[in-house]
Amino acid sequence: MVHADASNFAEGVTKEQAYTQVLLQAEGLFDGQRNWVCNLANTASLLWHAYKSLPSPSRQVNWAGFYTLDPQKKGASPQQQLVLGPFQGKVACQTIAFGRGVCGAAAATRTTQLVPDVEQFPGHIACDGDSRSEIVVPIVTGEGDERRLVAIIDVDCADLNGFDEVDKKYLEQLAELLAKGCDW
Amino acid sequence: MVHADASNFAEGVTKEQAYTQVLLQAEGLFDGQRNWVCNLANTASLLWHAYKSLPSPSRQVNWAGFYTLDPQKKGASPQQQLVLGPFQGKVACQTIAFGRGVCGAAAATRTTQLVPDVEQFPGHIACDGDSRSEIVVPIVTGEGDERRLVAIIDVDCADLNGFDEVDKKYLEQLAELLAKGCDW
Repeated sequence: MVHADASNFAEGVTKEQAYTQVLLQAEGLFDGQRNWVCNLANTASLLWHAYKSLPSPSRQVNWAGFYTLDPQKKGASPQQQLVLGPFQGKVACQTIAFGRGVCGAAAATRTTQLVPDVEQFPGHIACDGDSRSEIVVPIVTGEGDERRLVAIIDVDCADLNGFDEVDKKYLEQLAELLAKGCDW
Repeated sequence: MVHADASNFAEGVTKEQAYTQVLLQAEGLFDGQRNWVCNLANTASLLWHAYKSLPSPSRQVNWAGFYTLDPQKKGASPQQQLVLGPFQGKVACQTIAFGRGVCGAAAATRTTQLVPDVEQFPGHIACDGDSRSEIVVPIVTGEGDERRLVAIIDVDCADLNGFDEVDKKYLEQLAELLAKGCDW
């Protein structure tokens, strides 16, 4: 198979079907390949092309990608920050402090942030003034006391209410797949 | 400035002007940020949006991104390979052996490969059957005996003859900027 074919999503499928294809393709791509940069880069491409195959608001997604725990700031908790990882879309903020904005909140609380209107979110960081709604899902590895945040999935939409519980469900499954499928 | 604005290229500029803007924006983004994943991710975005602002064949660019030296295979020379880094476009091949295809040739020889017709290139790897021409520029760090290949810039075009000496000149400048502006 030519790899680019993995980015081809049929028109007219449901969001559930598109996400199911993303998960299946991602699982296939991660088989035998645990490099996190490589896997996040291909996953950003899968997500981007899945959204573009769907009707609005999903089609209005204007950024899909990742931030990872900044290796320069792995020390004490107050200094922790995220650093930009692979993505598709326009140029993005390079670092985000834990707790700051939607991404920082997801990282600090390790819980998905589903934000129907970013302007209503306290401390929202406007990397792109076109973004109106956002979903951020933490990627957490390890068990028990060893649990640690390694990255977040971040998707922005130029429409309000771009994301719902379906996005949350499937992106959380994707986060789990990435947590287990990469060497962090 | 909102970061996404860096991806906005005026219509009607020349290829030289678009590349000059890419170089200036990249230099600004790398100021104070040496994380290579972060910098390659934003640079892929800059390149992608620059090409899309230009007339064909540049507008027909269908993949712009990076492969880096695979840390899993840094041992003996016959085992060296490239692994996928940040990019914009469809899902791509995950690893490429040194010497194999256009990317592998650029890595093995540390020289730019300007390929007007990929089907005429011995051992071309068809990650995407739509790609017709390609340019690959090595990113090399260090001096003298310490010189080593760390990554390549790879750009594919769906038109034949997508790239010329102008692309070569500016992408080689970008490679030098990336070599010096990131911790590899």
